[in-house]
Amino acid sequence: MTPFVPPVRDIRFVLEELLEHGSLSLPGFEEATPKLVEAVLEEAARLAGEVWAPLNAGGDRQGCTRRDDGGVSVPDGFAEAYRAYAEGGWNGIGVAEAHGGQGLPGVVASAVQEMLHGANMALGLCPMLTAGAIEALIQHGSADQQARYLTPLVEGRWTGTMNLTEPQAGSDLSKVRTRAVPCTEEPGRYRLYGQKIFITWGEHDCAENIVHLVLARTPDAPEGNKGISLFLVPKFLVNDDGSLGARNDVVCSGLEHKLGIHGSPTCALSFGERDGAIGYLVGEQGRGLNHMFTMMNEARHKVGIEAIGVAERACQQAVAYALERIQGRRDGQECAIAEHLDVKRMLLSMRARTDALRALALSCAADMDRARHAQDAAEREAAQARVEVLIPVIKAFSTDQGVDIASLGVQVHGGMGYVEETGAAQLLRDIRITPIYEGTNGIQALDLAGRKLGRDGGAALSALVGEVEATAEALAASPDLRALGESLAAGAADLRAAMARVLEHGRDADALQAVATPFLSLTGHVLCAWQMGRAALKAEATLAAGSTDAFYTTKLAAADHALRQWLPIGRAQRAVIEAAPARLASLDPASL
Amino acid sequence: MTPFVPPVRDIRFVLEELLEHGSLSLPGFEEATPKLVEAVLEEAARLAGEVWAPLNAGGDRQGCTRRDDGGVSVPDGFAEAYRAYAEGGWNGIGVAEAHGGQGLPGVVASAVQEMLHGANMALGLCPMLTAGAIEALIQHGSADQQARYLTPLVEGRWTGTMNLTEPQAGSDLSKVRTRAVPCTEEPGRYRLYGQKIFITWGEHDCAENIVHLVLARTPDAPEGNKGISLFLVPKFLVNDDGSLGARNDVVCSGLEHKLGIHGSPTCALSFGERDGAIGYLVGEQGRGLNHMFTMMNEARHKVGIEAIGVAERACQQAVAYALERIQGRRDGQECAIAEHLDVKRMLLSMRARTDALRALALSCAADMDRARHAQDAAEREAAQARVEVLIPVIKAFSTDQGVDIASLGVQVHGGMGYVEETGAAQLLRDIRITPIYEGTNGIQALDLAGRKLGRDGGAALSALVGEVEATAEALAASPDLRALGESLAAGAADLRAAMARVLEHGRDADALQAVATPFLSLTGHVLCAWQMGRAALKAEATLAAGSTDAFYTTKLAAADHALRQWLPIGRAQRAVIEAAPARLASLDPASL
Repeated sequence: MTPFVPPVRDIRFVLEELLEHGSLSLPGFEEATPKLVEAVLEEAARLAGEVWAPLNAGGDRQGCTRRDDGGVSVPDGFAEAYRAYAEGGWNGIGVAEAHGGQGLPGVVASAVQEMLHGANMALGLCPMLTAGAIEALIQHGSADQQARYLTPLVEGRWTGTMNLTEPQAGSDLSKVRTRAVPCTEEPGRYRLYGQKIFITWGEHDCAENIVHLVLARTPDAPEGNKGISLFLVPKFLVNDDGSLGARNDVVCSGLEHKLGIHGSPTCALSFGERDGAIGYLVGEQGRGLNHMFTMMNEARHKVGIEAIGVAERACQQAVAYALERIQGRRDGQECAIAEHLDVKRMLLSMRARTDALRALALSCAADMDRARHAQDAAEREAAQARVEVLIPVIKAFSTDQGVDIASLGVQVHGGMGYVEETGAAQLLRDIRITPIYEGTNGIQALDLAGRKLGRDGGAALSALVGEVEATAEALAASPDLRALGESLAAGAADLRAAMARVLEHGRDADALQAVATPFLSLTGHVLCAWQMGRAALKAEATLAAGSTDAFYTTKLAAADHALRQWLPIGRAQRAVIEAAPARLASLDPASL
Repeated sequence: MTPFVPPVRDIRFVLEELLEHGSLSLPGFEEATPKLVEAVLEEAARLAGEVWAPLNAGGDRQGCTRRDDGGVSVPDGFAEAYRAYAEGGWNGIGVAEAHGGQGLPGVVASAVQEMLHGANMALGLCPMLTAGAIEALIQHGSADQQARYLTPLVEGRWTGTMNLTEPQAGSDLSKVRTRAVPCTEEPGRYRLYGQKIFITWGEHDCAENIVHLVLARTPDAPEGNKGISLFLVPKFLVNDDGSLGARNDVVCSGLEHKLGIHGSPTCALSFGERDGAIGYLVGEQGRGLNHMFTMMNEARHKVGIEAIGVAERACQQAVAYALERIQGRRDGQECAIAEHLDVKRMLLSMRARTDALRALALSCAADMDRARHAQDAAEREAAQARVEVLIPVIKAFSTDQGVDIASLGVQVHGGMGYVEETGAAQLLRDIRITPIYEGTNGIQALDLAGRKLGRDGGAALSALVGEVEATAEALAASPDLRALGESLAAGAADLRAAMARVLEHGRDADALQAVATPFLSLTGHVLCAWQMGRAALKAEATLAAGSTDAFYTTKLAAADHALRQWLPIGRAQRAVIEAAPARLASLDPASL
């Protein structure tokens, strides 16, 4: 199997040349210098490439097992690799120093996350969920909760989970039934009873404690969303001095047998089988879903990044195989299959799309930094508006494209891609969850076309398209890049037209549902192509200035592919939206 | 898991209404009446739905195992299900009566194959490979070989394999190294030595004997293709009276651990580990590859049909799940997710594409019947020319789309699609092989854009596009279907323009490779949309004549989707072809 080489050079190109390290000049990041960021990336690459990546295939083969004592064993080496991560301080790199973290910009933390998830997605999910718990406590936890739980979570000594889904409550969390009964002896203390499913890293032995954040319903709470509150349920109760107390009444009642991410234990958790699981209200009663949603942007961004990490690994593996597999002839000579242009086209398509997705996702992370840290309130607000539009695109488009890239990776391997030994199939199996969890991609599309477009009449997206148009003009002004500029301008025009069409639908839920997914796909193609247009301008300028670095020649080829071979497919979604099917609403799905 | 209901109604719609049972009027099929075909379909549906389908999930879970004695155990129930198939006479339904078959038209055999593969793809592969061996012996076997081997193969008492691939010889079979040394004692008798890999159903206990057809190289044979001959190597030697003799020197040395089709034993076979495996030359020495290629059209068509069968099952499963899963609200009411238009759009997309692929594949099967059986030589020739163009499209486009349909099936299931219990994931894992084997889809694209277009200057495809245009006109003449006609006409125009562009490239292998895959995709979209345009005309006429059958209303909705929501995506490939990347040939793949 090809070793994974974390893509430090490509990431640095985005951070340094496309984003010009904008996050580093924000208030609060004074100590983060380009030099430090470089060192952080190199060190993270070492952890990802040398410690995490080698465990990926074995973790898939071995999977997780639920032991007779109710505990869960994760694959060999995972606990040590997690410990190396925690002890290296990686868990807190994006967390503010006030909470015990290292306070680096989110864009750097995202870059590190990409490398780790590319190395070992199943293991990466553990800290990804912990990050959600940390964020929830920072935003909504009481002073006591923060004092008691934050430090060990940030240090990675404890891990966190999100307990949302129940069998009858998936996309629709208003259906949550888990009950939280107040303990009369202590205010804020509850006993929880219920079943949660699909709990990522819900039980394991890699950390001293697990902090479950659980959606549950208090007695006499109203039906629906407003009856749901958020609770903190530790696996081991925590004494006032921070030491661990009794084992709480929450147990893993089963592990899912999944298509992929076998090294990540996906648990059914049972709360209150004995006398009730002790839990503590986080934030306000009845506002559990709202509190969850404040973390949603980060979590969805992380899923997009995760898919990009796996796509990167699929690229690397396909290129390596195609360079080494001799088959057929070109110009009369035996050759590696990478020399066959149809194969090279697949490799370039994988690379161009991965580059484009990364550039967009990291640029969104930089926007998130600005939204939190910019001096000026108006700038923060503008950045936040942009983030709101970008998040569903990053989540859904990166994951849909990521699945396609991983599938193309299997294809490049031919028959060897279908046998598990090469690892190409594992990447496809692993990444296939990403369009599903953290809000299905259909829900992302509705979020974009409905809520996000609706609330500002498309202003934030329109501003983004304005930047796309500026890039298109800059490309068109260059003789060598004119065709790219024309293609991008046409894409921007399609997106404007489609946006107008979607806005016409207003609050007509059916009409929006019929066009939401095509609209998200169009948006993703145009915005990703835009990023590659910007990359082309940078690459051309660098080459024009005398660089002979092949990196930039390849970036130009990738940009050419993205704008002239990939974007046209996305542009077709405009026609799909304009021909929105009149018969869909009246069609009886049972007849299909 | 949803029971599989073989799509008899949809298949009959294609055979009876779209193809108007054209094959039944060909010479040689006098005894095949519409009534008989209907009975055959119903009976095959029973076997597929009641006997084969229930074993599919268990077969995936259990997989195959190589025993210490070198034998291979297939999943529980597979041997009995195969026996039910063989004893029911299904193995010979498409084989001429002269060879012991039932001599039904190929289009009927294809319809039966679709149902069986939808029920259980892993098991279906066993007779699929046997069919190749039967065809090879009919076309190239000596009278003695036919007498000795055909009957038990046609009866399904014995099964067949195709031994092509070796580690260094996959897409490029000229690299085959297995040696066949003539036995001096008996002309036509050889001893084979070598290793084959990826041999489907290469070893198992479901049949009394296995007839391996093996590509091997004779001593002093020239390098490359012309040194390769085809040999028949039985697992058990066959005595003159047809009884079984000694075990031959061919053994299964290993089983592949694959992404899917776990119930199908994919074997490494070792020939001649002791004193050489006895083999018999089939056809002419040095013409092994040619002999194989004469079976290629049938085999590739079968892979396309297989993918359609699995896509059909994915559709059914997604629809059933979406109808039963209650989540969220529509118009203020709790509803099944199938009522959400974004989900209904996914279901309709799966259904429309599956219908379209089936219609094209069965229409090609009807062309294959005409190519063999039409009275008139010119008609046979025209049909054959059409088949040659269609085969790579059916193989590659059906399998690429099939993978996408199965993946959408997983998506419709949400989190439940990612756990293996629902079976949606298995369908994706199983179908993922189809774009790879029997010539990768890249090779199909080169076959279409290079050989097939090149040899008649696009005449056969052009004739097909002429029929597409006629359908577009007929649609445009109907007030209700005008938009479909316009869309189809635009697709036909794109295909003509793209074809002209491809033909300009002539024999420039690099230029062809750069556009072949987009060209095949465009061709597939246009031809499939054409079939749905024809379906729309039939449906509209039937409804206009007073039918109130919802089947036709749904068919209209599927056609609308295919022509106005799906075809536009395919049409974008014209722009991709026209922007064919200049930088691709000079790009260093190692830089990707």
